[in-house]
Amino acid sequence: MLSKNKLKFFSSFSSKKIREEYGLFVVEGNKMIDELLVSNHTIHSIVATSDWIEKHTKLVANVEVLEASSKDLECISLLKSPQDAWALVYTEYKSDPLLIEQSELVLALDTIQDPGNLGTIIRLADWFGVRQIWCSSQTVDVYNPKVVQASMGSIFRVHMVYGNLFTLLAQHSYIPIYAADLQGENVYTQQLPKQAIVVMGNEGNGISQEILPFISTFLHIPSFSTHSHKPESLNVSVATAILCSEFKRIGQFINKI
Amino acid sequence: MLSKNKLKFFSSFSSKKIREEYGLFVVEGNKMIDELLVSNHTIHSIVATSDWIEKHTKLVANVEVLEASSKDLECISLLKSPQDAWALVYTEYKSDPLLIEQSELVLALDTIQDPGNLGTIIRLADWFGVRQIWCSSQTVDVYNPKVVQASMGSIFRVHMVYGNLFTLLAQHSYIPIYAADLQGENVYTQQLPKQAIVVMGNEGNGISQEILPFISTFLHIPSFSTHSHKPESLNVSVATAILCSEFKRIGQFINKI
Repeated sequence: MLSKNKLKFFSSFSSKKIREEYGLFVVEGNKMIDELLVSNHTIHSIVATSDWIEKHTKLVANVEVLEASSKDLECISLLKSPQDAWALVYTEYKSDPLLIEQSELVLALDTIQDPGNLGTIIRLADWFGVRQIWCSSQTVDVYNPKVVQASMGSIFRVHMVYGNLFTLLAQHSYIPIYAADLQGENVYTQQLPKQAIVVMGNEGNGISQEILPFISTFLHIPSFSTHSHKPESLNVSVATAILCSEFKRIGQFINKI
Repeated sequence: MLSKNKLKFFSSFSSKKIREEYGLFVVEGNKMIDELLVSNHTIHSIVATSDWIEKHTKLVANVEVLEASSKDLECISLLKSPQDAWALVYTEYKSDPLLIEQSELVLALDTIQDPGNLGTIIRLADWFGVRQIWCSSQTVDVYNPKVVQASMGSIFRVHMVYGNLFTLLAQHSYIPIYAADLQGENVYTQQLPKQAIVVMGNEGNGISQEILPFISTFLHIPSFSTHSHKPESLNVSVATAILCSEFKRIGQFINKI
């Protein structure tokens, strides 16, 4: 069981202020902790049930692990249905992008605000083999607990860069830079390169004025709605998914009419 | 200003029990209410600021509209940032599907549980011209406030059927029935028909055993991850988006390598 003091300490990480003060973020749930253990992130401590600890003895040999009752875990958890393990992990903010490879697709996020959207984008980017995501500094914090949970472990694999998008794009303007825009070219009829940067704009305001000059092509996912009153737009994570799919499917669509 | 009694009455709709008792659901936000006003849904009442009412006089001629202060609206709102208008609307559960047209794509949801996922699916379905979505009766309630908000107004356009998926699929087995499955055929290399039903399974458990016999083809969205430890799956709304895109883009991809 956890002491009263430890319980109070771990519970305090529901506060953003405390997480920032310690430079730690929260990872929860059995699957997420499994992903964490095979990642190269530095773990501060794990709080888990005795059953969980017994099953993971080898994997957590060098980590501080504290045994807790399910009731303790309920108390410190940020989830509606707490599971058997909860961890504090050191944040690692990166400001340098990776060198872009020959057939690499890079995502650049221009101030995505909803944590669910960012987490979903990280997860789908990982699926589509996107190695790095560049985020404007006003983009929601990657270590926000809702981002971490929605990423389903992909947060441990994708290289997340926070910085000035203007500077990052200016440094890479030799690579074709695309952006999603309702007035853009039909994505289904465009010839897309394998190496590209795709910029996704803010949920409400789209792409910032200052980075517009870097965009070589605007892409549009056409609507097939026949209603007189059509939907205005797609959710940003859904649009990102379709664009990633279009860039990655190249060469995979033989046999289609 | 609202009377104390009215304030109490409207605030009570944060409770699912009260919403069900009255057969009413909550619609919030200026954009959503604009979509509501051009839909054929029956409005019980609108609570709004005097500014909003002034701007919408003609549109709300036959509706009970109550003036409220921003503070009143904050009090009854389910949103973090309440806007200028809030409405109660009559629920209309449908059990009959529409007659399937020649080039129609139908979505069938086998117990989607997360309200954000259902709302996002309704929004993207509307974008891709999907006229009707069939939901298993265990699928999250379409009138859950989180579903309504995530649908961004598309809930007023898409014909949502709740019922027994086994029966619905059995009645339409003359149409090709597809389902998303990690073991399925690569969606990018499959020849897809214009008329089809696509079944999406539950977030954790996939497709139910009892409806498996109706599936003519299982489809898989391949992962392009090169990590030794790959992501397990895509979020269900993201997978639905990519499948809708693949079915709808047919004939639109001339000029591609």
